[in-house]
Amino acid sequence: MPTHSFKPTHYHNTIGSHPPVLTIAPGDTVATTCVDASGLDQHLQQATPRGNPMTGPFFIQGAQEGDTLVVRLEKLRPSRTSGWSGVVLASGVVDPDDVPALAQARGEQRRLDWEIDLVANTAQLCSPAGRLEGLKLALDPMLGCFGVAPSRGQAISTATSGPHGGNMDYRGFREGVTAYFPVLAEGGLFFLGDGHALQGDGEITGTGIETSMEVRFSVDLIKGQRIEWPRGEDAEYLFTVGNARPLDQCVQHATSEMLRWLTTEYALDIQSASQLMGQCVRYDLGNIFDPAYTMVCKMPKKLLESLPR
Amino acid sequence: MPTHSFKPTHYHNTIGSHPPVLTIAPGDTVATTCVDASGLDQHLQQATPRGNPMTGPFFIQGAQEGDTLVVRLEKLRPSRTSGWSGVVLASGVVDPDDVPALAQARGEQRRLDWEIDLVANTAQLCSPAGRLEGLKLALDPMLGCFGVAPSRGQAISTATSGPHGGNMDYRGFREGVTAYFPVLAEGGLFFLGDGHALQGDGEITGTGIETSMEVRFSVDLIKGQRIEWPRGEDAEYLFTVGNARPLDQCVQHATSEMLRWLTTEYALDIQSASQLMGQCVRYDLGNIFDPAYTMVCKMPKKLLESLPR
Amino acid sequence: MPTHSFKPTHYHNTIGSHPPVLTIAPGDTVATTCVDASGLDQHLQQATPRGNPMTGPFFIQGAQEGDTLVVRLEKLRPSRTSGWSGVVLASGVVDPDDVPALAQARGEQRRLDWEIDLVANTAQLCSPAGRLEGLKLALDPMLGCFGVAPSRGQAISTATSGPHGGNMDYRGFREGVTAYFPVLAEGGLFFLGDGHALQGDGEITGTGIETSMEVRFSVDLIKGQRIEWPRGEDAEYLFTVGNARPLDQCVQHATSEMLRWLTTEYALDIQSASQLMGQCVRYDLGNIFDPAYTMVCKMPKKLLESLPR
Amino acid sequence: MPTHSFKPTHYHNTIGSHPPVLTIAPGDTVATTCVDASGLDQHLQQATPRGNPMTGPFFIQGAQEGDTLVVRLEKLRPSRTSGWSGVVLASGVVDPDDVPALAQARGEQRRLDWEIDLVANTAQLCSPAGRLEGLKLALDPMLGCFGVAPSRGQAISTATSGPHGGNMDYRGFREGVTAYFPVLAEGGLFFLGDGHALQGDGEITGTGIETSMEVRFSVDLIKGQRIEWPRGEDAEYLFTVGNARPLDQCVQHATSEMLRWLTTEYALDIQSASQLMGQCVRYDLGNIFDPAYTMVCKMPKKLLESLPR
Repeated sequence: MPTHSFKPTHYHNTIGSHPPVLTIAPGDTVATTCVDASGLDQHLQQATPRGNPMTGPFFIQGAQEGDTLVVRLEKLRPSRTSGWSGVVLASGVVDPDDVPALAQARGEQRRLDWEIDLVANTAQLCSPAGRLEGLKLALDPMLGCFGVAPSRGQAISTATSGPHGGNMDYRGFREGVTAYFPVLAEGGLFFLGDGHALQGDGEITGTGIETSMEVRFSVDLIKGQRIEWPRGEDAEYLFTVGNARPLDQCVQHATSEMLRWLTTEYALDIQSASQLMGQCVRYDLGNIFDPAYTMVCKMPKKLLESLPR
Repeated sequence: MPTHSFKPTHYHNTIGSHPPVLTIAPGDTVATTCVDASGLDQHLQQATPRGNPMTGPFFIQGAQEGDTLVVRLEKLRPSRTSGWSGVVLASGVVDPDDVPALAQARGEQRRLDWEIDLVANTAQLCSPAGRLEGLKLALDPMLGCFGVAPSRGQAISTATSGPHGGNMDYRGFREGVTAYFPVLAEGGLFFLGDGHALQGDGEITGTGIETSMEVRFSVDLIKGQRIEWPRGEDAEYLFTVGNARPLDQCVQHATSEMLRWLTTEYALDIQSASQLMGQCVRYDLGNIFDPAYTMVCKMPKKLLESLPR
Repeated sequence: MPTHSFKPTHYHNTIGSHPPVLTIAPGDTVATTCVDASGLDQHLQQATPRGNPMTGPFFIQGAQEGDTLVVRLEKLRPSRTSGWSGVVLASGVVDPDDVPALAQARGEQRRLDWEIDLVANTAQLCSPAGRLEGLKLALDPMLGCFGVAPSRGQAISTATSGPHGGNMDYRGFREGVTAYFPVLAEGGLFFLGDGHALQGDGEITGTGIETSMEVRFSVDLIKGQRIEWPRGEDAEYLFTVGNARPLDQCVQHATSEMLRWLTTEYALDIQSASQLMGQCVRYDLGNIFDPAYTMVCKMPKKLLESLPR
Repeated sequence: MPTHSFKPTHYHNTIGSHPPVLTIAPGDTVATTCVDASGLDQHLQQATPRGNPMTGPFFIQGAQEGDTLVVRLEKLRPSRTSGWSGVVLASGVVDPDDVPALAQARGEQRRLDWEIDLVANTAQLCSPAGRLEGLKLALDPMLGCFGVAPSRGQAISTATSGPHGGNMDYRGFREGVTAYFPVLAEGGLFFLGDGHALQGDGEITGTGIETSMEVRFSVDLIKGQRIEWPRGEDAEYLFTVGNARPLDQCVQHATSEMLRWLTTEYALDIQSASQLMGQCVRYDLGNIFDPAYTMVCKMPKKLLESLPR
């Protein structure tokens, strides 16, 4: 299968039916780059305006509404030795009465800078870092925002997310993961960007450690498989992704999608699927910062493989 | 330190300032038993009416409002070889339009029965179990409902939870964990019950595998330490627990409580605490079924220990 | 029917199965008084500690679980010429980023004082009142917190609300209204308090104009009518009350209760009830400040009376 | 000022920066028509595919980001003698356990038909209408979906709403109302459609009485006035509109917008604005059905006019 090397010349702040930058076939691999959330590239040059600028879209030959696009994140690696983050916890993730103290602690600062060590695979706050001086955190690079053109000609801001993916800010979208998106427009039209060198659950300071990325991904197509919400798969888990507000509704979307997955592809009846999920399911919090929040419903693959046929 | 062996003769369906069944001192250990959520004991006898009947309350000498009660779950083990669970996913955890199919799949059934193997430490659905016939799930016993008398003379149903703990249905409350509760009434008045042999995140069928339990716990007291929400600690994590609705508010409570923990006991400034949490925090979903939901905010202890002093 | 004149000697900060202060019969009327939310009586004396102290409970002869208690608010009138209110909008009712400006505007102030003119039926902020100097607002007295003992021996804080009523802070509970509560404990056990001389929708400063009250109410009983949530009736509307969080769930409770009302007492089929409600329903926001919020679903009585039989 | 008569030839299912159908100047009036939510025109012809098709966009000369677009709904009248509605209450507006009964009551029906009497100004369900046979409801025509192109090149589905307006489904947007929208793109780009002959609060059957409309509106521009959320004004009230989920967040947006309005245009300090709002505010529920819900914060104009200057 061919590997395309694609160097972006422009970016998008919406995910929509924009003219493709490259047409690829199922099975193809693409090596490309993403600027950071503020539009800074690997040389810290302002390549494009801020706001989760996306590389893409990539047109996948044969992709039609009602298919599923398979995207494997083969490589995901910061492309520079610096990153930045929000200063304090976001005002929506704490009790409202704690907001003034956070605002005071932030003051006029807008960002904190991080040094990324690509050999040791760690990040540390730039000096002076107070109590965190010298603390090295292991990198765990991820894509904050990626997905496909939404239905009906919509162009959706890369600040938010939906059935098409988008700004899910889920740390589980890391190297080695396979993501599944519903094809909602001709060619799928895949976009990617908003790399984080590291991010906790919830993106609770409003950012991860934001940085530019080198990315290699491959695509495939499942013809005629209609899914409602993004899905994913890593070594341990199948997972489904619900993007909405409040978190309760994210859970509903993700749980319903997992129920569909188990009752269709795994041919479980509703009662059996309910018991497996009820006793063994895990949920991750993607983000509780963006206009739409993200919760992820996870089922252990080992468990599903152990089912009597 | 003495170990008390306590055999309950009556139970409570509210957590409140009820007459203590035993007075114990900080440092003491109690070995006791809990009936299951429906009031069935280890002999499957109806010991008391249904609805998360609680063993207790235990009066802790010297505990006063403004202190913190420390409860270490030293042993937690099913006391019989059977359990039961809800039949299908609860109607609130899926997209509303999926509710009719669940209702149909449940039909007239109210419970499914499980066989618990206390030697192999597994549970399996009783026959006929359809696609799950013969599937053995590893036990992970937990307490669904425990906590202390709430403030101001309230008596709160064991169906729900709050700052006092209660029906949090969080699978992280397992053997080996230390839980911390705010003392809100003279003597603390500790209650426990609602054992689950196993439960996934969210308690999404409305139950775990419900069973009676043998429990051994020890208590201690931190005088003058006022906390707002339950906290806990296991080998890997410090954690804080928010009980509310929607899940967003659980996250706010738990996050604010963790921020207080880090900025007081760990003496981090708000900005440093924000960075540690922002890049490294984990959230667990306790339950999304009870009148109040539960989310848990977790910080790796290793990370905190690695901080420069 | 007798009118009881009852002068309270003590108050409760929880609504629960406390010893009755008076036993009355269906059809009886009670004239009594309520202190304000902070425990101040008509002489501005601290009659009892703060926190929505309740007058009562009144035991209604013959009231049993599964009945409906009818309470008619015959008279509701401030019993002093002063009131107080919160200083600024509560932190939960605005966008989180607006909270610091509110905190700054509040400063160290805890309350603002109001002068109540019982002849003109108006209230005005005490001087200096800045831009509101001299502005007179028409009184619209209401009960913020009233209801019956909850089920299963619970004692629920008067800060919050539930199926039993409680701190609903709905301005529609004014003189002339008939309220209906589910009887959840022997004798019903009716409590009342937390008078507001005036309050907008939502109780968005965390208070109305808080004051002590003279109240006259009569009670009746509907034997064997089981309702799930409080209901009410005024000259124009039937209404149902949902108490929960978030507001979405309040709407669900109130809408389901109205659907039950129309399909049982009015014998409408689900489809007809849906059409009437869909085209003609009104919702009021009770409060969006307390631990449980309140939304009210209203149906015009004239519309129901116009239905062909 | 000129009146433009505009007959649409095509429609949009997204609100975005689409090529304008007409350029108009501040002060101009437009007389035009809208198809119903399913694309049916005044002759019941399928003029365009379903999904709230919009008439427009109209380009307003001189409108630039940071201005406010003023739209006065001068006339709003059904253009045919039939309408349709959803059959039963939507599954999200009732308690989840009530959903199966609703699904059963709906059965295979997708719509109910209404007869609209444009002389008597009433609507009635077409026969057989069961218990509602012959019941005539007074019309109260409104626009369910209207607004301006969103920021940054987004194209947002007419199923949902946001700061740009959109599918707010608020019955207060009726003839005689003046609406204010933030200009977020060059020319404003005003769209309108989704007429309802009548709708209760909440749009709880998922529709009003859906019909095609004749509309006459005039536009104006407030240069340099930046607003965050749609605003409106009728004879009695100023109002602000929050579009989000859950309803709590709608309230936050609308309340913050009203606070801005009072503290900027009315020059009230935060404390005075808080008191006025706290004691006198009203909230309306727009919709609790669409992907984004709508709550409206209302202040009596008479009250503001009575303020000492």
